[in-house]
Amino acid sequence: MSERARPRRVLRIRGETRATRSDSLAAEEPLEIRVDGVPLTVTMRTPGDDMDLAAGFLVAEGAVRSATDIRTMRYCGGKDESGRQTYNQLDLDLAVPAPQPRAFATTSACGLCGVDSIEAVRVRAEPLHGDAVVVPPALLAGLPAKLTEAQRVFAKTGGLHAAGLFDATGELLCLREDVGRHNAVDKVVGWALREGRLPLRGTVLLVSGRASFELVQKAWMAGIPVLAAVSAPSSLAAELATEAGMTLVGFLRGDTMNVYAGEQRLGS
Amino acid sequence: MSERARPRRVLRIRGETRATRSDSLAAEEPLEIRVDGVPLTVTMRTPGDDMDLAAGFLVAEGAVRSATDIRTMRYCGGKDESGRQTYNQLDLDLAVPAPQPRAFATTSACGLCGVDSIEAVRVRAEPLHGDAVVVPPALLAGLPAKLTEAQRVFAKTGGLHAAGLFDATGELLCLREDVGRHNAVDKVVGWALREGRLPLRGTVLLVSGRASFELVQKAWMAGIPVLAAVSAPSSLAAELATEAGMTLVGFLRGDTMNVYAGEQRLGS
Repeated sequence: MSERARPRRVLRIRGETRATRSDSLAAEEPLEIRVDGVPLTVTMRTPGDDMDLAAGFLVAEGAVRSATDIRTMRYCGGKDESGRQTYNQLDLDLAVPAPQPRAFATTSACGLCGVDSIEAVRVRAEPLHGDAVVVPPALLAGLPAKLTEAQRVFAKTGGLHAAGLFDATGELLCLREDVGRHNAVDKVVGWALREGRLPLRGTVLLVSGRASFELVQKAWMAGIPVLAAVSAPSSLAAELATEAGMTLVGFLRGDTMNVYAGEQRLGS
Repeated sequence: MSERARPRRVLRIRGETRATRSDSLAAEEPLEIRVDGVPLTVTMRTPGDDMDLAAGFLVAEGAVRSATDIRTMRYCGGKDESGRQTYNQLDLDLAVPAPQPRAFATTSACGLCGVDSIEAVRVRAEPLHGDAVVVPPALLAGLPAKLTEAQRVFAKTGGLHAAGLFDATGELLCLREDVGRHNAVDKVVGWALREGRLPLRGTVLLVSGRASFELVQKAWMAGIPVLAAVSAPSSLAAELATEAGMTLVGFLRGDTMNVYAGEQRLGS
């Protein structure tokens, strides 16, 4: 199996000083996800937890809802030039219909374009208003430090996004890392699917970077009521969180945070 | 035209203090790019410079090389519920063959999977070894501040990635911003295409975040010899930069930087 960090010779320049040393870079490789032998997508990801990544991706696409929806997952038998298994292609056998490739879900006539373009990337799910979990700000404020502590690779490469799933007491349930933050979230959700934990009621998902529309959608599809990000959300992320009945927290730093949706879950 | 930042009511929590105020979020909306009426891709982007984005995307895919390869670009005539043009779908008429959707370029037999998966996302171009531009570290060290100064939206929303194209004297030629860093790069390259400046010999592309495989590929396809990033590169980014004969600089902060490929362009 590929490792998550790769050594690389690097020239370090500081003012007039130059020195060559060995550095450690976050591994990035393509993963092709195939369903029933048909290529569904290629994602650039950090190797590791690939089956969780594929499973979580399919949850986000609305294709699978429980572990039994996936019959088998296996790496294809490819080898690279030196005869080593590449582990860069996963073939899934589903017990449910294969999803449509998302980039091509839009078949709308031109006249309906804007609305239909949004619909093409928006997978519908039931709103999460009914999840009455309360997560006090003081508890939220403690989560980034827990995430950082648990990150084994981050300190080494400085190049990986993290996604951490916490329960309402602040206990870390699952941490995943990747060069792509959407992959890190897919890996967490895929883990939950395979553990039989979906939907993830009463949980908090913390991401190390920004909160995009896509991350809100992925959290929603997994039933996660609270999404917190260390950096800024986008406008559409905030709008979708409102529509989803989710709580969206951004700029979670020290004891400060911004709440963009679902304030009721922060207590009073 | 949509604006790049959107107002949003936000609850600001600091310790025991709570206050509601108006915040400004980076706009994020889907853009569907169609070629000859056929959907090619949907990208989540910050509205603005959409035609540059589409043009740059096609350069990165290896589909177009000069401005005349694109006959026309126009927004489709869609309107949202309130009758406003959505500007979320662009239709391009090309003078060259339409590109293959990239995620589905892989049609290899399973037995070749690893190698072919990489080939599927790697668009071949001529290596840039012949570009003998020299960019001294002291000049590079000054670029992040120039980029930040030029960013009009960043300070407002904190949620946008930036890509800045500089000439070898450190003059900023083009700055573009987006919620997606790949989009910001596409916008810069599309601008260059439409200005008749491709290939971008002797230039430096600075990105505000990390350097992924995809960004190196996009810079390579545009003929940019030097890619500098404020944060870490991935392993594959460094490998591809070497293969491309490019210079790759990471962790460009203050007067320090790491050089992962193409040291000769940093002078001696």
